[in-house]
Amino acid sequence: MTTETPDLSELDFATDLDAAPLAIGDDVADLLFREARTVNAFADDEVPDGAVRAAYDLVRWGPTAMNAVPLRLLLVRTPEARARLAAHMNEGNRDRVLAAPLTIVAAADTDFHRHLGTLAPHAVRLAERFAGDTGSRTGLARQSGLIQVGYLITGLRAAGLHVGPMGGYDAAGIDTEFFTENGWQSLLVLNVGQPAVADATRPRGLRLTYTDVARTV
Amino acid sequence: MTTETPDLSELDFATDLDAAPLAIGDDVADLLFREARTVNAFADDEVPDGAVRAAYDLVRWGPTAMNAVPLRLLLVRTPEARARLAAHMNEGNRDRVLAAPLTIVAAADTDFHRHLGTLAPHAVRLAERFAGDTGSRTGLARQSGLIQVGYLITGLRAAGLHVGPMGGYDAAGIDTEFFTENGWQSLLVLNVGQPAVADATRPRGLRLTYTDVARTV
Repeated sequence: MTTETPDLSELDFATDLDAAPLAIGDDVADLLFREARTVNAFADDEVPDGAVRAAYDLVRWGPTAMNAVPLRLLLVRTPEARARLAAHMNEGNRDRVLAAPLTIVAAADTDFHRHLGTLAPHAVRLAERFAGDTGSRTGLARQSGLIQVGYLITGLRAAGLHVGPMGGYDAAGIDTEFFTENGWQSLLVLNVGQPAVADATRPRGLRLTYTDVARTV
Repeated sequence: MTTETPDLSELDFATDLDAAPLAIGDDVADLLFREARTVNAFADDEVPDGAVRAAYDLVRWGPTAMNAVPLRLLLVRTPEARARLAAHMNEGNRDRVLAAPLTIVAAADTDFHRHLGTLAPHAVRLAERFAGDTGSRTGLARQSGLIQVGYLITGLRAAGLHVGPMGGYDAAGIDTEFFTENGWQSLLVLNVGQPAVADATRPRGLRLTYTDVARTV
């Protein structure tokens, strides 16, 4: 594989000198992003439905294509449902699902067009075209749904929760297990709760800087 | 098309009674989500690079699969680059790109694996497998890249900017125009700046509620 590696001095925690100040306080910036960490081990405390609801009530206002709002949430709570989900996770994620106080399957509703009359009355002719075009519907649902997953992770943290997102699973297996009747497609599986007292996170990984990722033309 | 429509009483601005309180203040919740609006017409004021940098410096800490951090940003500033981009936008978005003070093409780097030695030293064997598997790389880059677009939109607002995301464009055309040499794939095009004094936004669209989108098993 190619061995190109970014300059390590570019990858530390220092903020670039010419970054403008944020419009939010340091405490919020830390809570939502800078000090928030992916959690692998959770405390046993139950995660109240109201906290997830508060997160969704916040982030549902984030923009989506045509205001389609295709993100759907399957909250996996019972031991039976947990076992059904765990069977489709990669081996390294299976015990995490079984141990987490709450696991959410974030999904995209490929039948989102049924709601466009309410959500996007200005685009109702597009909605009719979507009705006969499963491919376009799936593409839009997944694109906007994943952007909404980004909002959701931020929103769960804004509601005081911690998340452990997991991409390692058999998506087709999960969709067959849970979504044959409603046209949802899994986008990401997230464990949710409060961190365990010990060994909740890995050491902090580095990140690419603005200089690494941005180009101007 | 199917005419199923959610109950309008479920779609108003009222917060469900049993939502838990947020861990962030109302001012921040309003700035990032609740009162933030998609902007279609921008003021002429230049958007300083430092504000975009501040947004990225914040949101780079958001989680991605394997810590791959695949989001890349093309800032389109010159009139010549603006015209090249506008040529690939759908007709309704063309004038918006030409008029915006700054347009960002958010993209996924399908060659993200070159950085995994630094970003994810624990996953270096996976990195080697990715080197020979363009399909898996593209899937992961687009999945995590879109989630990062959700963080980015939130982060631009946290930096005091407003956004007008546009999904209507010829993605292959943009990729050929700008990304033949670096393996990036366009994910979303965003106009960025401050709202124009008049007619900056459409009337607020409704949103699906938690009850509409969440199921528990």
